[in-house]
Amino acid sequence: MGEKSYQVAVVGATGAVGNLMVRVLEERGFPVKDLRLLASFRSVGKTLSYKGGCIPVEELKEDSFKGVEIALFSAGGSVSKKFAPIAAAAGCVVIDNSSAFRMDPNVPLVVPEVNPDALVKGPGIIANPNCSTIQMVVALKPIYDAVGIKRIVVTTFQAVSGTGKRAIEELRNQVEALVQGKEPKMEIYPRQIAFNCFPHIGAFLENGYTEEEMKMVNETRKIFNDPNIGVCATTVRVPVYYGHSEAVNIETKAPISVERVRELLSQAPGVRVVDDPANLCYPVPLDAAGKDETLVGRIRLDPSVENGLAMWVVADNIRKGAASNAVQIAETMMARNLL
Amino acid sequence: MGEKSYQVAVVGATGAVGNLMVRVLEERGFPVKDLRLLASFRSVGKTLSYKGGCIPVEELKEDSFKGVEIALFSAGGSVSKKFAPIAAAAGCVVIDNSSAFRMDPNVPLVVPEVNPDALVKGPGIIANPNCSTIQMVVALKPIYDAVGIKRIVVTTFQAVSGTGKRAIEELRNQVEALVQGKEPKMEIYPRQIAFNCFPHIGAFLENGYTEEEMKMVNETRKIFNDPNIGVCATTVRVPVYYGHSEAVNIETKAPISVERVRELLSQAPGVRVVDDPANLCYPVPLDAAGKDETLVGRIRLDPSVENGLAMWVVADNIRKGAASNAVQIAETMMARNLL
Repeated sequence: MGEKSYQVAVVGATGAVGNLMVRVLEERGFPVKDLRLLASFRSVGKTLSYKGGCIPVEELKEDSFKGVEIALFSAGGSVSKKFAPIAAAAGCVVIDNSSAFRMDPNVPLVVPEVNPDALVKGPGIIANPNCSTIQMVVALKPIYDAVGIKRIVVTTFQAVSGTGKRAIEELRNQVEALVQGKEPKMEIYPRQIAFNCFPHIGAFLENGYTEEEMKMVNETRKIFNDPNIGVCATTVRVPVYYGHSEAVNIETKAPISVERVRELLSQAPGVRVVDDPANLCYPVPLDAAGKDETLVGRIRLDPSVENGLAMWVVADNIRKGAASNAVQIAETMMARNLL
Repeated sequence: MGEKSYQVAVVGATGAVGNLMVRVLEERGFPVKDLRLLASFRSVGKTLSYKGGCIPVEELKEDSFKGVEIALFSAGGSVSKKFAPIAAAAGCVVIDNSSAFRMDPNVPLVVPEVNPDALVKGPGIIANPNCSTIQMVVALKPIYDAVGIKRIVVTTFQAVSGTGKRAIEELRNQVEALVQGKEPKMEIYPRQIAFNCFPHIGAFLENGYTEEEMKMVNETRKIFNDPNIGVCATTVRVPVYYGHSEAVNIETKAPISVERVRELLSQAPGVRVVDDPANLCYPVPLDAAGKDETLVGRIRLDPSVENGLAMWVVADNIRKGAASNAVQIAETMMARNLL
């Protein structure tokens, strides 16, 4: 082929998302020349498999980025805040999964199916949006382009994998304890997550919303480049391992039929319409898990308001909501000769 | 006391809700002179405990209602359709938990905290609303009275107990199977409910909504006696045993502050405000289970629309959503000399 290949680093490679970034690079056949796995000192000694080989995890240091062209970060906000600018200064294209730089006006916040034009050539930081935001804007983009969107009311059903490996273990341990008649332990979440749900993702803010809810407001506006779009979110953690679900209610600026929405979404990149209720066909998180597509179903008019539309949007929160979107940003930059 | 006491029958006494109706009659000290437990032939031979004694289950027959003054029905729509009119003709006040008569213009549909004035004296059928509707209207009534409500967008997180005993067992069995590495069995629900959720409660209708969603539209309008109130619902089953949660977004007709909403709800019958996010205080289904109150929290303004307000409403779906509301209807009729 003679296709260019890249020096890639994954920062936070031993976390749930970082680990998956490595798998997604392999699965999607991203042209990696050399892969470096970076993490904190306590992960040194671990290895991850990649294309049949074993790659050792190295300690993340200030000089880790020499020769690296693309750095995928998923090690939390504080690591990104410190090391993403260092990597960018060393010449990397940094694709950062944390929230550290998302609202920075100088940092593109990108979902490749939605706003690829926000990507620019050369080294620097690109932010990967919040998982809940990504799948919603992927599903709404074709409608936004066709008739405009005035307002979004969204309620989420978020999987524990969004919190990380230890939350996955917490749900599993709580369920096992309850099955055995034991008291479930709480270490990661403030409330029991097994057989429960709670409207608390991220810290509570002065205005009564959570950080997660305000991410959906602010990131949606930035990605659509539309400061006037109204968004009201309620974000809820549910006892599901993989896959966020969202009940999305919108008011469009002009009328659109359900048939036209289905048609637009059927042709949209990254979207799969799963909408045949008569045959019990609607998206569920178990079906979305392991896929990069955003599944959309339950598309129906909402007659309670002018130009109202309701739908149900499900995607794998650590794939399309995190790892896959990051890799797709790199793919898009490659396709556009921005790398 | 010399207080009058009543001949009471519970129809469907061996089901999840019927069984709980017996417990709620006892717990709330309803003045029962004599309690008859009625069910299908296959439950004959079973007994239920009541006030330290044991009451045998009798077969439901056309002549079961002789001498019965109050009959609480929870045996499904077809049993209600056949036997509720027979019981009413025999002189009973029938309080029916099925959906069979809810939209009948001659049948009151009552939540005691919301529309007690719909109750009338004498024998006849009174319908107990759908669980999801009850807790929503209890939470919204004080706001409706204060400033009016134009539109409601609601998304539910519904517990398996709403489907009945066998659904509770299905979730438990699926979770146990998965913990043991076995394949989960599906008998009650069309999709796996353990570690999953699906936007499918009741049959799908022509308009793309489910029966459960349209119950929330139509019953809310009937209870508020307001055919113009806009309601759009998405009803979702989640792997929770007891307690429905609802993300409720409303547009009021006039402005109202969060403080005033909290104040109104604090004084409202049947409501408990659980709304101190800074101290991790918000309603969750595990806390609502076993209680008759509707818990309301996460009260906040929704700046994306004029007079927008969002909140999170949780109640025990088989208590306030079914058994307790039925008993409270009887209590209210008693207090108003309608029995």
